[in-house]
Amino acid sequence: MNTDVFTAHESNVRRYGRSFPTVFTRALGATIWDEAGNPYIDFLVGSGALNYGHNNPDIIAPAIEYMVGENILLSLDMYTAAKRDFIEAFVDSILKPRGLSYKIQFPGPTGTNANEAALALARKYTGRSSVMAFTNAFHGMSLGALAVSGSASTRELGGVARHDVIRVPYDGYLTQAFDSANYIDSVLGDPGSGIEKPAAIILETIQAEGGMNTASAPWLAEIQRICRKHDVVLIVDDIQAGAGRTGEFFSFEFANIAPDIVCLSKSLSGSGSPFSIVLIRPDLDIWNPGEHSGTFRGNNLAFVTAGAMCKLWSDTHFTAGVERTAAKLERRLDSLVAKFPNCIEQKRGRGLMAGLKCRSQAIVGRVHDIAFENGLLIESSGPNRDVIKVLPPITITDDELDHGIAILDHALKEQANGD
Amino acid sequence: MNTDVFTAHESNVRRYGRSFPTVFTRALGATIWDEAGNPYIDFLVGSGALNYGHNNPDIIAPAIEYMVGENILLSLDMYTAAKRDFIEAFVDSILKPRGLSYKIQFPGPTGTNANEAALALARKYTGRSSVMAFTNAFHGMSLGALAVSGSASTRELGGVARHDVIRVPYDGYLTQAFDSANYIDSVLGDPGSGIEKPAAIILETIQAEGGMNTASAPWLAEIQRICRKHDVVLIVDDIQAGAGRTGEFFSFEFANIAPDIVCLSKSLSGSGSPFSIVLIRPDLDIWNPGEHSGTFRGNNLAFVTAGAMCKLWSDTHFTAGVERTAAKLERRLDSLVAKFPNCIEQKRGRGLMAGLKCRSQAIVGRVHDIAFENGLLIESSGPNRDVIKVLPPITITDDELDHGIAILDHALKEQANGD
Amino acid sequence: MNTDVFTAHESNVRRYGRSFPTVFTRALGATIWDEAGNPYIDFLVGSGALNYGHNNPDIIAPAIEYMVGENILLSLDMYTAAKRDFIEAFVDSILKPRGLSYKIQFPGPTGTNANEAALALARKYTGRSSVMAFTNAFHGMSLGALAVSGSASTRELGGVARHDVIRVPYDGYLTQAFDSANYIDSVLGDPGSGIEKPAAIILETIQAEGGMNTASAPWLAEIQRICRKHDVVLIVDDIQAGAGRTGEFFSFEFANIAPDIVCLSKSLSGSGSPFSIVLIRPDLDIWNPGEHSGTFRGNNLAFVTAGAMCKLWSDTHFTAGVERTAAKLERRLDSLVAKFPNCIEQKRGRGLMAGLKCRSQAIVGRVHDIAFENGLLIESSGPNRDVIKVLPPITITDDELDHGIAILDHALKEQANGD
Amino acid sequence: MNTDVFTAHESNVRRYGRSFPTVFTRALGATIWDEAGNPYIDFLVGSGALNYGHNNPDIIAPAIEYMVGENILLSLDMYTAAKRDFIEAFVDSILKPRGLSYKIQFPGPTGTNANEAALALARKYTGRSSVMAFTNAFHGMSLGALAVSGSASTRELGGVARHDVIRVPYDGYLTQAFDSANYIDSVLGDPGSGIEKPAAIILETIQAEGGMNTASAPWLAEIQRICRKHDVVLIVDDIQAGAGRTGEFFSFEFANIAPDIVCLSKSLSGSGSPFSIVLIRPDLDIWNPGEHSGTFRGNNLAFVTAGAMCKLWSDTHFTAGVERTAAKLERRLDSLVAKFPNCIEQKRGRGLMAGLKCRSQAIVGRVHDIAFENGLLIESSGPNRDVIKVLPPITITDDELDHGIAILDHALKEQANGD
Repeated sequence: MNTDVFTAHESNVRRYGRSFPTVFTRALGATIWDEAGNPYIDFLVGSGALNYGHNNPDIIAPAIEYMVGENILLSLDMYTAAKRDFIEAFVDSILKPRGLSYKIQFPGPTGTNANEAALALARKYTGRSSVMAFTNAFHGMSLGALAVSGSASTRELGGVARHDVIRVPYDGYLTQAFDSANYIDSVLGDPGSGIEKPAAIILETIQAEGGMNTASAPWLAEIQRICRKHDVVLIVDDIQAGAGRTGEFFSFEFANIAPDIVCLSKSLSGSGSPFSIVLIRPDLDIWNPGEHSGTFRGNNLAFVTAGAMCKLWSDTHFTAGVERTAAKLERRLDSLVAKFPNCIEQKRGRGLMAGLKCRSQAIVGRVHDIAFENGLLIESSGPNRDVIKVLPPITITDDELDHGIAILDHALKEQANGD
Repeated sequence: MNTDVFTAHESNVRRYGRSFPTVFTRALGATIWDEAGNPYIDFLVGSGALNYGHNNPDIIAPAIEYMVGENILLSLDMYTAAKRDFIEAFVDSILKPRGLSYKIQFPGPTGTNANEAALALARKYTGRSSVMAFTNAFHGMSLGALAVSGSASTRELGGVARHDVIRVPYDGYLTQAFDSANYIDSVLGDPGSGIEKPAAIILETIQAEGGMNTASAPWLAEIQRICRKHDVVLIVDDIQAGAGRTGEFFSFEFANIAPDIVCLSKSLSGSGSPFSIVLIRPDLDIWNPGEHSGTFRGNNLAFVTAGAMCKLWSDTHFTAGVERTAAKLERRLDSLVAKFPNCIEQKRGRGLMAGLKCRSQAIVGRVHDIAFENGLLIESSGPNRDVIKVLPPITITDDELDHGIAILDHALKEQANGD
Repeated sequence: MNTDVFTAHESNVRRYGRSFPTVFTRALGATIWDEAGNPYIDFLVGSGALNYGHNNPDIIAPAIEYMVGENILLSLDMYTAAKRDFIEAFVDSILKPRGLSYKIQFPGPTGTNANEAALALARKYTGRSSVMAFTNAFHGMSLGALAVSGSASTRELGGVARHDVIRVPYDGYLTQAFDSANYIDSVLGDPGSGIEKPAAIILETIQAEGGMNTASAPWLAEIQRICRKHDVVLIVDDIQAGAGRTGEFFSFEFANIAPDIVCLSKSLSGSGSPFSIVLIRPDLDIWNPGEHSGTFRGNNLAFVTAGAMCKLWSDTHFTAGVERTAAKLERRLDSLVAKFPNCIEQKRGRGLMAGLKCRSQAIVGRVHDIAFENGLLIESSGPNRDVIKVLPPITITDDELDHGIAILDHALKEQANGD
Repeated sequence: MNTDVFTAHESNVRRYGRSFPTVFTRALGATIWDEAGNPYIDFLVGSGALNYGHNNPDIIAPAIEYMVGENILLSLDMYTAAKRDFIEAFVDSILKPRGLSYKIQFPGPTGTNANEAALALARKYTGRSSVMAFTNAFHGMSLGALAVSGSASTRELGGVARHDVIRVPYDGYLTQAFDSANYIDSVLGDPGSGIEKPAAIILETIQAEGGMNTASAPWLAEIQRICRKHDVVLIVDDIQAGAGRTGEFFSFEFANIAPDIVCLSKSLSGSGSPFSIVLIRPDLDIWNPGEHSGTFRGNNLAFVTAGAMCKLWSDTHFTAGVERTAAKLERRLDSLVAKFPNCIEQKRGRGLMAGLKCRSQAIVGRVHDIAFENGLLIESSGPNRDVIKVLPPITITDDELDHGIAILDHALKEQANGD
């Protein structure tokens, strides 16, 4: 397998090609094959962008048909039939059954585009410039998004200082004893606190890149209450945790909240085609026409596949399957935690968005390498990269899941030899 | 044609749907059809993202084949065969024939992602935080990109102030008598000028959104000389003007310069699929692995179609056709300028990236509406929106071009009745 | 008493003239007289700038002699005999007896000038731009100083956002249970915390404007340890609490710490003449000659009076007197707290830097007005202005103190009638 | 003369003590004596803070009397008789005769405090955050003031980036052919210029630190017109050029303009005592009581001496003398320019605010040293420090001026030997 082309011509910034030194070609469901025909179970799924598996036939077939029919592929925000169909599917299969009412904005098709649009709208709506964000947050790689991210190396990329960002501790940061929601409430109410009232509070319900930290339902409800009390916009960045990852469509459903703005991307297209939307509480939709834009906001192939994805959520057979798989994954991970106490510190995450906090970055590195050699793709997260992310497709078959977990079990056992 | 869904559920930010109140379905070459079967000549081409026409069969056929074959669609920056093929095609058909040598970075797939990556790299490389940008520039909608843009309404979106941006006058701003390159050279050399040495100068060779303002070859060469003298990174944002739009692949070829960083997107995929790359002078490629990322940087469908696009440039029949079409367009626009002196002030742009500066925004508005009614899609640009952008596919047929220009001629004539 | 001139010609920003509507003329010790000859006990002492009383003869006599002798008054930072004498007195009477070794910088003569110089030096020394500052801090009215201040109305003055300021909770903010020093230590050590390593931590040991909040000795020692651990410069803004106000010369002596930088102003000249200095740990004194300046940094009249002030601290009779007065003041305030529980919530502060936290801003307003009518000047502080500041001269006579406390007692009693 | 104390204990930031290595004691009029009794003619006058000479008896006598009478020295912004007298003198002797009407704000007593207050008020009044400032400007050493200054080394002090500052070329920057006022007018009127409408334009009519660059009367009038057209506050920083330095009281009188805000300091007290005021167009005085403050805003000794200074301007004998001296100085400098063409490039400045632009920094360095050895104090300015500042007291006697010029003549002649 020739990887010289990458070494010679691709920027040094490339990363996964280094940790998975092979060349991939075909992919179906939870399995990817390399050029030599070796199969790999995929617990990485494009960092959460392939929740419905690779080349899911329910999703891809309409796309092929669309292209064969010479239908319009790129349309900015002109009206197209494909876009209309997506909106109807999203409203009917996702919003209405959950009692939610949002206006839909189509920004540029990446998660960071969505977060930037959300922050811009919150600033425009409130007339304030600061935004409150959390320790270990990750919101994207463009300047506005990386400013609100927690990782030092990410934020340094901007080469410029924190832009009007107020950093506060996430649920459970440091100790469970410290009530960070109460702290936020207090500083917002104290004219001497030195902390401006922000335009928005932006948060992930599970901090995937930050180490699979989870916010509790009461904490999320309290943050929503505080936002309403102080007239601050609540933005949930549901880019990685949403679109089905936790087992529910939106990751915040379990907390019974209704954020003012929700950002979706990654698995939203169902196919891996770049796509993102911003859901806006209707009275907050004060955009002027054309005020925010993006060339690829009209990616019709994504409209087609995303519409097909939405319809899955109206199928009780599908949703029951996801629930069953989530329960099974939890059981399997609990077993691993019990079996490898010297290696694993705790299970993290929620539903199919799971993580194993290990006792060191070195352990995770060895597990990663042994897993790859044995046909499993995983990645790490957290400020110290000592958390194994376990993100199988939510549509994974029992056999694939069993096989993947078995490789992981093997790698956890073998890794001790690397000490 | 039912557009109620958009009114009810899409954000107020929608724009083109308002100015083209119909629902589009099929598209081929320079023509789009709406649901009622009405054809429209497309001089807008996705704001420059469809230079090779809609559903160009040379480009789309391999994509359909790729999808049918269940090949991997989303791969982050893992190595894939499709990505390898693209790199080879880009190097062989584009870079080598032009004597250029660049490392290729794959950021998130939008233009603004590419510009943000370029700015971040320039800041990292120089250790400086400021960036110099021009009057009437447009570089995107994320915070770092909109900060360097010129439009007041765009920049206000950030809700925060100019982020380390030094604004300087573009070539020919105000008067041709003022040598803005010399001004830049002087302030960079004067320790009392109050202007820091920037990390980079970022520019478009033609300011499309800014009103189709063109930089001259001597001015571009002078800016490159100044950048080298003061050790400042030269970034050419070739997102709209590149990928063939001016008749050459890169818009700066005519000036015989070699920028340190070049950003490409929009028409790069050839198909409208979201895709962008950053070309980096090899010694400047000091990224650490994974330091900059983006979920959709591995959009394999775009790799496939972009590779097909690149190969067109090795076909002399193709390039000769583009040249001929560019020459024809220029002649036709010169005729319109001569014919409607009360309406058109001057022709702007270069090659197939053309504009008609009109005498008022109202004229442009009327021309736009009459053209639409008669089957032609155009859009306006410029701080006062008084410039008609004329961006046909560079592969447009003679018949389509004749027909489009005829409708434009008619609209220019008829618009006077609206006074 | 004619105050029309002020109403007609002075800016609306004037404040004390409104709350003390009379015209003052003579002043001696703790007493000021107005034009009508009415005396007032001064518990305000120029917001802490007259710790040694008005026109202290030990301090003023040398100044008169200096002026009569036609000695140089303003000298920038040229060497003068008066400056030399001050430096010797400060080193011999203040630094050496306390085992401290600092280089002395003479910035512009106000406290805010000193804080700005300290912050600039810390940024230069560390190469970092952020500064950590506390809830309810106050550091001055120029942009760099107000950015680190806590009060919303103060910071808004800049009209621009927080400049690289990281806000953290002061000792005892919210609850004593929350260990803010541990929180600071943690976020500085966590690469995902979203909080940059700052150039400096700037703090007051007692937050006078913030409501007379006091930091404990263990907390101060811990902050010093954290600064050293993370290589962060510790700046103590001792502008209001220093120069004798707490009963010691430096307010941090009780905690047995040695800050990297100390800022002094207000009472430093002993006479009310504008004067400030920055004390710098010698190895941190990396200024280039002339790199920081200020026209009035060579105010020789202040050198003369400040030198006389310093010498007082070598006089055990003087220091014993201050200690005795501090003890007496504490007893008197404890009595008031016990006597007026419906009015006073708690005593705050330390030594002669005392405050009475009242149960409402309205109570404080009434006490202020009744006290003025009866010949006592006090002011309020705190984010809700519900703290009475009690800052008598540290040289106040027993009679004056008794008289002042008696008026305060009367006002606390009478204020209830205003309900 | 012992200077060891300074070397041992004063910060490395000290500058003038290094270039004038002696210890000064007495001072009268234009002459300073060192400890050894050597006299020096002073063409530096505290960087413009001693326009009325050292220990001017008309100004100092009332101050001594005030101190001897135990009158109040420091009073914050309480009403005092001394302050009332100053306001009356300033209104009657300065404002009224010039037909000007301003409210007077008393900020902290340094120039930078005044500029910070002016900028804060302009931002509050307009609700905008940016400020427009000029190449080679100097406005002070606190963060807000150094942000608007032009010198790279000054601005770097903040350790943080330019704070909402728009830099534009001063009158005559680069070439006289470039009309910088027209450029400003254009960018403020162009929505695509990338330059926000600022809160204020801040300028010096003569850029002293910037190299004694002078703005012409038509340019100043045009800037005032532009400010009014675009609703931007015009701030004249008259700290060094005002209070009599140019021969008029305000440096802008010759241009017949009335700025919205004027900042005065340096020579305002007449005595070298720290003092500054901000003059505010009455309808712009929207400060809330106490919104801006500063401990030393109530420096009564400065009120007394400043009042005495103001009264001088009602004395035609005094004003005639200043005019005569200005004319004489101009003639003498013209002679030097004519006599030393190899050394001096051009005379700069206006009235008694004069400079000699030399052909190199080295020449200026040698002239400075030879002049000092022969009993004359001068300093340099400009981004390349190649301008000799000639700032004698405006009250200098003919003999002193002749003597000073003779030493300068000698130094210019002798310096060639140093080549």
